Amino acid sequence: MKKYLGIDLGGTNVRVAKINTEGEIEQVVKGPSYGLESADKIINNLFSLIRLIDNLDEVVGIGLGVPGPVDQKKGWMNMASNIPSLGKYPLVHVIEEEFNIPVAMDNDANVACLAEAYFGAGKDKDAVVYVTHSTGIGCGICINRQTISGAHGFAGEIGNIIVNREGDKINHLNRGAIEIEASGTNIVRKAKERIDENIEHAGQVFNLAFKEDNKIALKIIDDMTTDFAIALANVAHVIDPDVFVIGGGVTKSKDYYFEALIDKFKSMVHEGMKETEFQVAQLEEPGLIGAAMLPRSKGE
Amino acid sequence: MKKYLGIDLGGTNVRVAKINTEGEIEQVVKGPSYGLESADKIINNLFSLIRLIDNLDEVVGIGLGVPGPVDQKKGWMNMASNIPSLGKYPLVHVIEEEFNIPVAMDNDANVACLAEAYFGAGKDKDAVVYVTHSTGIGCGICINRQTISGAHGFAGEIGNIIVNREGDKINHLNRGAIEIEASGTNIVRKAKERIDENIEHAGQVFNLAFKEDNKIALKIIDDMTTDFAIALANVAHVIDPDVFVIGGGVTKSKDYYFEALIDKFKSMVHEGMKETEFQVAQLEEPGLIGAAMLPRSKGE
Repeated sequence: MKKYLGIDLGGTNVRVAKINTEGEIEQVVKGPSYGLESADKIINNLFSLIRLIDNLDEVVGIGLGVPGPVDQKKGWMNMASNIPSLGKYPLVHVIEEEFNIPVAMDNDANVACLAEAYFGAGKDKDAVVYVTHSTGIGCGICINRQTISGAHGFAGEIGNIIVNREGDKINHLNRGAIEIEASGTNIVRKAKERIDENIEHAGQVFNLAFKEDNKIALKIIDDMTTDFAIALANVAHVIDPDVFVIGGGVTKSKDYYFEALIDKFKSMVHEGMKETEFQVAQLEEPGLIGAAMLPRSKGE
Repeated sequence: MKKYLGIDLGGTNVRVAKINTEGEIEQVVKGPSYGLESADKIINNLFSLIRLIDNLDEVVGIGLGVPGPVDQKKGWMNMASNIPSLGKYPLVHVIEEEFNIPVAMDNDANVACLAEAYFGAGKDKDAVVYVTHSTGIGCGICINRQTISGAHGFAGEIGNIIVNREGDKINHLNRGAIEIEASGTNIVRKAKERIDENIEHAGQVFNLAFKEDNKIALKIIDDMTTDFAIALANVAHVIDPDVFVIGGGVTKSKDYYFEALIDKFKSMVHEGMKETEFQVAQLEEPGLIGAAMLPRSKGE
């Protein structure tokens, strides 16, 4: 069975795993990523971790999941706020030179989508859209088990999709962008403003709404499902996926809102699109597994 | 040089063209399509037209552009309001059986996108989004010269993208859908309601705005560019194309609104996406040429 390395490179930690074609993790090594230090320091540390993998010579490809948009032509991150020295640094090329193995790289969300497309909730589906509903809202897209990165690496950056042009303006995102309206952080923000400034987690807002029948909390959740449905309907009118795979912390409360979300989505799409599936993400380690499948998806 | 047949099948007329790998049209035959009659009548008529092509045996593939969403697994139109008897009719299979040549089919907008990606304003670009800005608003998507059809054939049906949830509700489309707000038909509708019920063409509204400084007409066009920019920014946050290729009748007035449209788009996207190109569609016959390139894009 072929073996791949999957690397999950974050701003704080980095993990390197050997993974087989069944998606089984055979070995993991990890350490700090030194994200705020020089590119040399980050790369030499990464090389050292890779060399800790047993029987490295049986590996046929290396894949990296990174926290920023990837320019596939250049093989670098266009921007990397958590690992600034790797912004526009030719990471793919440098790793290929060192290990003489094909290397592929994509952003976290695309990598997670690829993992779900190979082994998880999107298995055997041609068009898979993976959405993270967490502190932020992100998205990865796979068509025929190929990630869609876009011309500048920003494909799937749906957090900035405008769902309510009269909505809130908070940070660099668009006024009324879906992330501003419906992410976990912003469910909490709205609940702090409108109910109690001591609220800290989206789960508390769900409890207030559905266990204590708090009308303001119910309205916040109802607005969230409307906003989220508009965003997913907009995505569906571009990609028309077989399945939306939804991951991230907010899905812990899925029993409270998934049905409403799906009903609203169906009311906003063409007849033939109403059978679009909604699934919760299934994999424990989509970041490592998806990264490892990147070179495989490119024929290695 | 390889030769392909491109077929432009509409509700009223059908055209069949022999086209080479340079995108040159070598021969065209045409006739009524009998769109409202039986599938047998439509198909036998189509077969007769195909047989009028000289040296048919040199053709290596047949491509069809059709006015409806195409299920690629089934090789049929999921719905076909202009040619009802071909809804869920296995058109690809039937033509392949008759001529023993590979056949591919996609909707009008995807086919036009493919033509522009091979020979027009999207030439040499990896990710091309083609938008028709006409009586309606449609869209085709090509990545690496492959059309994106979606799970149910509805990829690129961006006319139903919600840009203004408080906007107008007219037909089966969503309230405030981009087609309802910004298509040529709806520029005219708004001008009839607000200026003069005798207005008949979008061009008249542009003239009122920019030659006669009519404030209401200026507002209608300004709203249109805002709505259109929101829709294209939403699409860009999903696909992140190299280039938007814009075709359709409204682009005749491009000198009056393209600059404003692009400026607004840039204000709504991430920094790295601001270099996204905007081009006007270049080809005279994107329907025929793109249809012919469908089998080529699949390796024929």
